[in-house]
Amino acid sequence: MEFRLALIGFGVVGRGFTEILVRKQEYLQRKYGLKVKYVGICDIKYGSVVSHEGLDPAKALETVKSGGTLEKHLNGVKGLNALEFIELSNADVVVEATWTNLEVGEPGLTHIKKALNAGKHVITTNKGPIALAFKELDSLAKSKGVKLLFSGTVMSGTPSIRTLIRGLAGCYVSEVAGILNGTTNYILTKMEEGLSFNEALRDAQLRGYAEADPTMDVDAWDPAAKIVILANIAFGSDIKPKDVIREGIRNVTLDNIKDALRRGKRVKLVARAWIDDGGIRAKVTPEEVDVNSFFGQVGGTVNAVMYRTDSLGDVYLIGRGAGGEEAGQAVLADLIELTL
Amino acid sequence: MEFRLALIGFGVVGRGFTEILVRKQEYLQRKYGLKVKYVGICDIKYGSVVSHEGLDPAKALETVKSGGTLEKHLNGVKGLNALEFIELSNADVVVEATWTNLEVGEPGLTHIKKALNAGKHVITTNKGPIALAFKELDSLAKSKGVKLLFSGTVMSGTPSIRTLIRGLAGCYVSEVAGILNGTTNYILTKMEEGLSFNEALRDAQLRGYAEADPTMDVDAWDPAAKIVILANIAFGSDIKPKDVIREGIRNVTLDNIKDALRRGKRVKLVARAWIDDGGIRAKVTPEEVDVNSFFGQVGGTVNAVMYRTDSLGDVYLIGRGAGGEEAGQAVLADLIELTL
Repeated sequence: MEFRLALIGFGVVGRGFTEILVRKQEYLQRKYGLKVKYVGICDIKYGSVVSHEGLDPAKALETVKSGGTLEKHLNGVKGLNALEFIELSNADVVVEATWTNLEVGEPGLTHIKKALNAGKHVITTNKGPIALAFKELDSLAKSKGVKLLFSGTVMSGTPSIRTLIRGLAGCYVSEVAGILNGTTNYILTKMEEGLSFNEALRDAQLRGYAEADPTMDVDAWDPAAKIVILANIAFGSDIKPKDVIREGIRNVTLDNIKDALRRGKRVKLVARAWIDDGGIRAKVTPEEVDVNSFFGQVGGTVNAVMYRTDSLGDVYLIGRGAGGEEAGQAVLADLIELTL
Repeated sequence: MEFRLALIGFGVVGRGFTEILVRKQEYLQRKYGLKVKYVGICDIKYGSVVSHEGLDPAKALETVKSGGTLEKHLNGVKGLNALEFIELSNADVVVEATWTNLEVGEPGLTHIKKALNAGKHVITTNKGPIALAFKELDSLAKSKGVKLLFSGTVMSGTPSIRTLIRGLAGCYVSEVAGILNGTTNYILTKMEEGLSFNEALRDAQLRGYAEADPTMDVDAWDPAAKIVILANIAFGSDIKPKDVIREGIRNVTLDNIKDALRRGKRVKLVARAWIDDGGIRAKVTPEEVDVNSFFGQVGGTVNAVMYRTDSLGDVYLIGRGAGGEEAGQAVLADLIELTL
C-alpha cells in the first residue's frame, strides 16, 4: 500500500520517524508492502513545503542537520501555515508531531481536527489532544471513515496502547497502573543512590531527560495525561487530566527513599486508574512498591504498565518510554497498521 | 461482523473459549460488532454435531458438564469424524483446539490444512502444527485468502505473538528470550522454598500444573516448540523444534538453586533464539538470572518474554501462560482480529 504522507512538526519525533523510514525503506516495502511518499513537511522553525509530486525525506533531514531551512532547500509550495498546509496537501495520512500542550491541546488539536475533517488518516504522538479530546476526535474520525492512531502518546514506541486495544481485545480491564514518566523515575532512581532531589533533577537535565522547566514531569502532569489516555481506552470513559488526583515527586525526600528501602520498598511515581462504584478514578502519586515486584525493578528512564484483566489476571508491558527513535517507531507501527 | 464458527476439540480450551463467548455475548456485539453462530462442535470424547442453522453453545457446555455427550443432546448431523466434520460444515472460521503433538503435529495439522484448503479462517491454540509447519500453513492461508491466527500457542492469552507481529511492527528483532513454561517455573520456584525436584514435581501434578507424564515440560519440549514459533515470526526463519538445543530441569539440584541464590541469582528455564552470523540459533536451558531483573521476578506459573529490538531496546511482556480461560481469551482476541 502506498501512502502520501504529510508531516507536521520536524522536531525530535518527526525527524526520528523520518530517519527510520529512510533507513528501512526496502524492508518496509518487502515485509509490509508499505511505500511512503512525503508530500509535505511543516515546521514552525524550519518552514513548510508542500509538493504533490513528493519531497525527498533524506534531503529534508540533511538540510536541517546542516542548519538550513526546508523552505530554502526543498522544492514545492512554501510559506503556508499549518492549516493552509493541511488544506493544500494531497496527503492521505497526516502525522501530527508538534509540541504538547496539556491545557488546551493546541496547536495539535486544531491540526488533527482539520486533517480528519479533510478525510485524512491522522497519526499523532501528541498527548495533549488525545488526553483532552479523545472521544470527540475518535467520533470525528469514525464519521469521516478514517483512522486516528496515537501509539506514541503513552510509553512512546513500547506498544502500551496497541497491547490494550489489540492484544487484550475482548478482556474486561478493571485497573490500569503504570510508571509512565521516565524523567521522574530516573530522578527517584538517582535519589536511591544518594543524590538529593535537586541534584538528581540537575543530572536529568544535563542528560536531556528533563526540561529546563521540569514541571510537566516532576509535578506529574505528563503521567496524568497518559493515564487519562489509557483509562479512556480501557474503560470507554471520558475523563480529563484535571480529574486526576495528582501529586508529583517534589516532596519526596532522601529519608523517605532510604526508609522505604530498609523495608524492602522503592518509591515510584505510579499512575493508576480504576473502576470504583461505577465511576472512573485516576491518580498519579508517589507509591511504595516492593523491590521484589515488576514495578520495583523498573529503574532509570524505563516505563512499565500493568493491565488488570478478567481472563488473564495482571499483564505487564515494560520498555523505554521516550526518545526520538522510539517515538518514530510508534508512528511507523501506526502507519503499518493502516496497511492491515 | 457475524461468523459461523466450527469448533474442533471441546476440552479445557474449547470449553474455556465457549464459556467466555456465552458470558460476553452482548458486550462483544456492542464493542466489536462481533456475533458468533456455532455451526458445529467436534470432540473425540463428546462426539460431533454439525448444524448449518446453529447450535446453542450454552447447551453444549451444560451437556458436557452434566456428563452427557454432544451427539446425544444436540440437534444436527452426527457421527462425523473431524475431516468429514470440516467438509460438511458451513463455517467461515474453524477453531482447532485438539491436543498437542510436537513430533508430527497430528491430528491438528491435518485439520488445519483441511480447513484452510476449504477456504475457512483458522484459529488454533495447538502448538504442534505451528511449531512444525508454520511456513507451509502460512503460505497455504495466504494462497486461499484466509487468515491463520494462533495467539494461544505461546503464553496463552498473554499476547506475546500479537505484540511481536503488531505491537513491534517495523522493528528489527535480533533476539527473543522467555520463561515460556509455567510448570517448570513453578517447580523451580518451589525448589527455592526447599522442595526437592521430585517433591516439587509431585506438588505441580497435584495442582494440575504438570501432567502425569511430565516430559513435555520438564524436558523442555514445550518451551522449545514455543521459542520456535516466536523465532520464525521474529526472524522470518523456518527452524524446527529439533533444531533447538534443549536441556530440561531434571538435573537442576537444590544445591544449584541455593548456591545461585547466595550469589543473587535464580535458576530459570530460559528459552532463547537469536541471529548469529546469518543463522538462527535457539536453545532452552536452565540459566542463572539476576534476582534483580524482570526474569528474576517471574515466579510460580507466570510467563515472560523479552524482545530485543533496534528502535526500542528490550521490551518485556509478562503474564499468565496457561489455563482454559486464558487460552479461550487468546481465541477470542484472534476472532476479534478477524473483524478488524
